Amino acid sequence: MFDITLVQVFDFVGTLAFAISGIRLASAKKFDLFGAYVVGVTTAIGGGTMRDMMLGVSPFWMTNMFYLICSAIALLWVIVFRKLLVRQDNTWFLFDTIGLALFTVTGIEKTITTIGPSGEHFPFWTAIIMGTITGAGGGVLRDVFINEVPLIFRKEIYALACVIGGIAYYICHHLGLDSTLSAIICGITVVLMRLLAVKYKLHLPIIKGEE
Amino acid sequence: MFDITLVQVFDFVGTLAFAISGIRLASAKKFDLFGAYVVGVTTAIGGGTMRDMMLGVSPFWMTNMFYLICSAIALLWVIVFRKLLVRQDNTWFLFDTIGLALFTVTGIEKTITTIGPSGEHFPFWTAIIMGTITGAGGGVLRDVFINEVPLIFRKEIYALACVIGGIAYYICHHLGLDSTLSAIICGITVVLMRLLAVKYKLHLPIIKGEE
Amino acid sequence: MFDITLVQVFDFVGTLAFAISGIRLASAKKFDLFGAYVVGVTTAIGGGTMRDMMLGVSPFWMTNMFYLICSAIALLWVIVFRKLLVRQDNTWFLFDTIGLALFTVTGIEKTITTIGPSGEHFPFWTAIIMGTITGAGGGVLRDVFINEVPLIFRKEIYALACVIGGIAYYICHHLGLDSTLSAIICGITVVLMRLLAVKYKLHLPIIKGEE
Repeated sequence: MFDITLVQVFDFVGTLAFAISGIRLASAKKFDLFGAYVVGVTTAIGGGTMRDMMLGVSPFWMTNMFYLICSAIALLWVIVFRKLLVRQDNTWFLFDTIGLALFTVTGIEKTITTIGPSGEHFPFWTAIIMGTITGAGGGVLRDVFINEVPLIFRKEIYALACVIGGIAYYICHHLGLDSTLSAIICGITVVLMRLLAVKYKLHLPIIKGEE
Repeated sequence: MFDITLVQVFDFVGTLAFAISGIRLASAKKFDLFGAYVVGVTTAIGGGTMRDMMLGVSPFWMTNMFYLICSAIALLWVIVFRKLLVRQDNTWFLFDTIGLALFTVTGIEKTITTIGPSGEHFPFWTAIIMGTITGAGGGVLRDVFINEVPLIFRKEIYALACVIGGIAYYICHHLGLDSTLSAIICGITVVLMRLLAVKYKLHLPIIKGEE
Repeated sequence: MFDITLVQVFDFVGTLAFAISGIRLASAKKFDLFGAYVVGVTTAIGGGTMRDMMLGVSPFWMTNMFYLICSAIALLWVIVFRKLLVRQDNTWFLFDTIGLALFTVTGIEKTITTIGPSGEHFPFWTAIIMGTITGAGGGVLRDVFINEVPLIFRKEIYALACVIGGIAYYICHHLGLDSTLSAIICGITVVLMRLLAVKYKLHLPIIKGEE
């Protein structure tokens, strides 16, 4: 009971943080309210939608209004508290990180329990990729919509935290830990990687061009 | 019989207008004939393709050549009548609006009659979103392909007309009207919203940024 | 036996060349290693992923690690040989062309042998489109990710080579040739079209705008 509630709280604050990141970037580009909402929703649910379409199941938000309502709350929040958002940056960073961890776990677990359209099971490395897409894919779609080069391809260790969390899940799974414990260790790994990357300003090297 | 013919006429002029809007923007960006055709097709069928992929059915155009032929006619039209296009603007605006209304209705009706890959039915609010994606999604893909910020996120009441039309459909449905009448009222609502928005230059407010 | 091996060699060098084209463009945009890898993978598998999602089957790479490994080799290659890449341009052009031909054939054959989610078969013209998307779609996604107007819409005869190869396949099929011979003729047509287009600098005309 407590578990379910905690996951729901994480889902709520994570969705909120993802949507707010999209809405803030949309506001910097002078989007109207509708456009800002669409970018916010896309940031929040875009990764999971890509995952579900590749897995051959209906996108998760199509039968559950929760995510659209969260995104509407995010829009209201940005409108009402816009002058306070910068001061709230640490909180939103934390919520965004919680969301990233939860969405990674969700993506992994959905992939290993889903049976594909032709009856196939997916290998664990596909689950890690799907966890990463669930966590980081919405941000890529957000950046495509605001016509910028995706941030996670250039500047930050973000998707890599999902990949490493996914590998942690796999190791736990391989060692015979149960799925709840594996999920918790995976989530904590994602959060730690992200916090360490930001605290120590860790970046991946830029790939060098030919000239 | 007359009904079917009228819907087909609307489908034809709507597809034509959508494709022409894509081809004109492609021509402004110096696309070649192939690129212009792809952008035209994408504008015309992109929204319905996203809808069908999320619903778990084959994209509608894959078994019906009609839409690709319409887009080819649109390409020819732009080549032959390019100097007259500006003078035809009111006509194309009207046809585009008819297409928007028809595609919204089509998207709603397909969603409420489709059973998802796991046997699920979709709620009516999902149908309204799918109607909006069917009507407005192709224009978003068009703008991604020509590397511009999607127009409907910044400037015009376009997708919102689909949403309001969808709500009108839901109210009719709720009041017990039959689906033909609900569809007609939905379509007229979309057309009226769009005409009023353009006539009175109605815009949604721009979302304010934090600085 | 020999056939299978040759197809696998073509698949390897084609995937490598596609991934390298994405990684090189990512490096010109100062992507980090993760971003460069994602762009490389997307260029290599993006077209086939779009095809499979439209056909209603699991994307081909989700159950076969080969394509992700090829893309990792491509990333290593660019890092190690970056100063030699320009000198290798003719080789990569050839490998890219082989990949284009093979992916076109693969897309066509998968489409005509796949049964859609509602039990439908797809017509041959849809197979030609799917062959073209398999060959050229990854490059479009690549250009969206690096925030450029897709190259194949403006400058080169690339996707058109797939279309013409697809028509060649259809003619062979119609004449009663078996599928191996049809596939070979299709592939050779794609290669020839591409080589002729580059050798004689053939372009499609730019579509003229209205002003």
